[in-house]
Amino acid sequence: MTQQIDSDGRLRHLLTLDGLPRQTLCHLLDRAGQIRDAAMGRINRRQVLAGSSVCTLFFEPSTRTRSSFQVAAQRLGADVLNFDASTSSTRKGETARDTLKNLEAMGVRCFIVRHSDNGAVHDLAAVAGEGTTLINAGDGRSAHPTQGLLDALTLRQAKGADFSCLKILMVGDVRHSRVARSDLHALRTLGAGEIRVCGPASLLPEDDTLAGCVVGDDFEQMLQGVDAVMMLRLQRERMEEGLISSLEDYHRDYGLTAERLRLAARDAVVLHPGPVNRGVEITDEVADGPQSLILRQVSNGVAIRMAVLETLMT
Amino acid sequence: MTQQIDSDGRLRHLLTLDGLPRQTLCHLLDRAGQIRDAAMGRINRRQVLAGSSVCTLFFEPSTRTRSSFQVAAQRLGADVLNFDASTSSTRKGETARDTLKNLEAMGVRCFIVRHSDNGAVHDLAAVAGEGTTLINAGDGRSAHPTQGLLDALTLRQAKGADFSCLKILMVGDVRHSRVARSDLHALRTLGAGEIRVCGPASLLPEDDTLAGCVVGDDFEQMLQGVDAVMMLRLQRERMEEGLISSLEDYHRDYGLTAERLRLAARDAVVLHPGPVNRGVEITDEVADGPQSLILRQVSNGVAIRMAVLETLMT
Amino acid sequence: MTQQIDSDGRLRHLLTLDGLPRQTLCHLLDRAGQIRDAAMGRINRRQVLAGSSVCTLFFEPSTRTRSSFQVAAQRLGADVLNFDASTSSTRKGETARDTLKNLEAMGVRCFIVRHSDNGAVHDLAAVAGEGTTLINAGDGRSAHPTQGLLDALTLRQAKGADFSCLKILMVGDVRHSRVARSDLHALRTLGAGEIRVCGPASLLPEDDTLAGCVVGDDFEQMLQGVDAVMMLRLQRERMEEGLISSLEDYHRDYGLTAERLRLAARDAVVLHPGPVNRGVEITDEVADGPQSLILRQVSNGVAIRMAVLETLMT
Repeated sequence: MTQQIDSDGRLRHLLTLDGLPRQTLCHLLDRAGQIRDAAMGRINRRQVLAGSSVCTLFFEPSTRTRSSFQVAAQRLGADVLNFDASTSSTRKGETARDTLKNLEAMGVRCFIVRHSDNGAVHDLAAVAGEGTTLINAGDGRSAHPTQGLLDALTLRQAKGADFSCLKILMVGDVRHSRVARSDLHALRTLGAGEIRVCGPASLLPEDDTLAGCVVGDDFEQMLQGVDAVMMLRLQRERMEEGLISSLEDYHRDYGLTAERLRLAARDAVVLHPGPVNRGVEITDEVADGPQSLILRQVSNGVAIRMAVLETLMT
Repeated sequence: MTQQIDSDGRLRHLLTLDGLPRQTLCHLLDRAGQIRDAAMGRINRRQVLAGSSVCTLFFEPSTRTRSSFQVAAQRLGADVLNFDASTSSTRKGETARDTLKNLEAMGVRCFIVRHSDNGAVHDLAAVAGEGTTLINAGDGRSAHPTQGLLDALTLRQAKGADFSCLKILMVGDVRHSRVARSDLHALRTLGAGEIRVCGPASLLPEDDTLAGCVVGDDFEQMLQGVDAVMMLRLQRERMEEGLISSLEDYHRDYGLTAERLRLAARDAVVLHPGPVNRGVEITDEVADGPQSLILRQVSNGVAIRMAVLETLMT
Repeated sequence: MTQQIDSDGRLRHLLTLDGLPRQTLCHLLDRAGQIRDAAMGRINRRQVLAGSSVCTLFFEPSTRTRSSFQVAAQRLGADVLNFDASTSSTRKGETARDTLKNLEAMGVRCFIVRHSDNGAVHDLAAVAGEGTTLINAGDGRSAHPTQGLLDALTLRQAKGADFSCLKILMVGDVRHSRVARSDLHALRTLGAGEIRVCGPASLLPEDDTLAGCVVGDDFEQMLQGVDAVMMLRLQRERMEEGLISSLEDYHRDYGLTAERLRLAARDAVVLHPGPVNRGVEITDEVADGPQSLILRQVSNGVAIRMAVLETLMT
């Protein structure tokens, strides 16, 4: 595993939240919170990365995550280079490593990388030059650390900094979800009181991802008294793969409705990483209701990515 | 219908020219004219939108219109986010509305929206947040207001501000054209003396789009003495749909040749929204001739879009 | 042929290195060298093209070359418009010429053009407006002048400014290579002592491209004592076209291995324009070895493109 923290304790890459010290994680949340609060800061921060090139290097397409990073980098004054590796010379047989080394040779110092393979971003970090920093924007099922951070920030804004009194329920396809893994790392690091995980057995992981969690398949029972419900996105391909029988059945068993949400604590909040399959994981009433923090997550995403870029690049 | 003008008379969105007050329309033309004339203004205007994010949100592809808006926004110093919604998470089932709300949550305050459905941009404006402004860059057959404005500016530069003495002929596929509808709204608001419309019956609208126009299918007769000929683009799909028999027949009946142009006033001008099907709607000789304002329209397009962005966003 | 140098000797376009005066070529190399060396210059140079629009107008896709130009233009402070003409209104039947004239009308003054047809960029330069400058980023098999310049710069940095004492070997598919043609023009202009060319007869040109070169098909013999080996990229399509029998055979006969490289001068350097087909033209050991200048070429590419943009646009 590539080290993301160098020998003087400085964060050099952001590859995973697994093992990221609590202090580093909290620094990123604090900084993102300040960025959100700084009403007047917009213009001034534009000098932070002026003259720097930031490259979004996506080996797997994603318009939303890329846009969030692009907005964050532009707000800091960076030049952004969108490199769509799924339609580029990587198709001509160039390896991901050669693509990285070439862009590095062009003077790019920060790469935001998405890849469909587990660990691919670690592999690239292992060959990166001395002054280069990598941010994992999602690799396989492994990690999506900025999503984990923005979810933690969203929870902290809603529920306060002491996570030890919180009961948090994660629902859905944990098995295939890098979001779930990064969320779990963040929640554990922040000392969440109780983490419950709920979903059909076919969508729950068989490895030690859920160590220490309360796991079950009865959604309504699991919902009792929780302070936060973190819904996961259902990939429609799961039906073709036979992992779920139908979207209707999934909704019946694991869809979050207003009625079900009343089983949670009165002031429970609802998160979802988006894009939402309305009527599948969640009803319109809940997604757009007063307990939903879904759009707040998106706003926090830009703040977190600004904090990460600033911390890594300055 | 979403109101594009708020209760204190301020233009909040630009969705259509239908019902846009003459004063507002003229203000936009005046401002665009100043922008064009300001030889020295280029650099200084770069601060107008510095630190603002402008998003081109295209649910239907268009490189030309998008480029024109992008150049306009960059000249005003904005950060531009190109969001190609035809290849993004909207494909994963996200609604246009959710895409808008997500980008809004990222801090984007101005959206330039193109959509293939009539009224889609109005629907999005109806759900937009308080500080958000939308510019319709073409929706279905309904409206393409910046094209209407740039055509009006081009005519005004060539023929003066008093439109009441002008005879203007529009030629071609009015039925399917949002450009035609926006042009007609602008021409009526500016008090055009006589608006003639000419094309095969299969390409003329059956609703009240042409109210007050002189309509006919004899191109040469309609050309007599007109001050401006506004050609429309012919979609080649119209042949497959059986609405025209062949491109050759269309050119024979409605193609603008140098010979035909001599039937118009001696100083008549020719407009076309582009891209031109050379040899179909118009011959090379006319498209590239001294009476053609086609490239002037393109230049005015950037000035109009700068004026619209500046007016809406400051 | 469009003149790229105007009557007062000023470089107006960069279309080809064929006939480019030695003085002009050396000026570009000198300027690029200064840009590379200027450790502190990064921020200051951002004002050079501030407020100017540079358009990458690619009728043939290429992410790498486009990215290199984009980074170069951004470093000089230009606004960059990426216009992908292979997916735009050129598909709707618009000619390349109309696309250029339209973008010119939008206020773009510098175009970086790639096209699959020989001479297409010259044709566009012939219709460009007075203040417009074109840079050929590769047309057909004809020319790729910035690649020729960056290769010359790379050789000069490694071997000094006096090329008369150098023996340089070019290997591979010269016939279909615009890189080879531009390299040969640069090497001749700089007075290279001996230019050797090696490849299977099916991949060598039949015209006068190789005039004055020592040509042969025995790779190991040709390698004896050379100071630089310039490998060319093999298009895999050549196998389907029957021009080579297999990638394995090609590698056996013309692949650069560490063992073969020992036949060259002890301090010989290796160049390749990328993307590299590892294990075909070149082994990993050589590509990543101490004599390889491949990544240095990529870095020099940005410097050369900055020098070209600066020279043409100011």
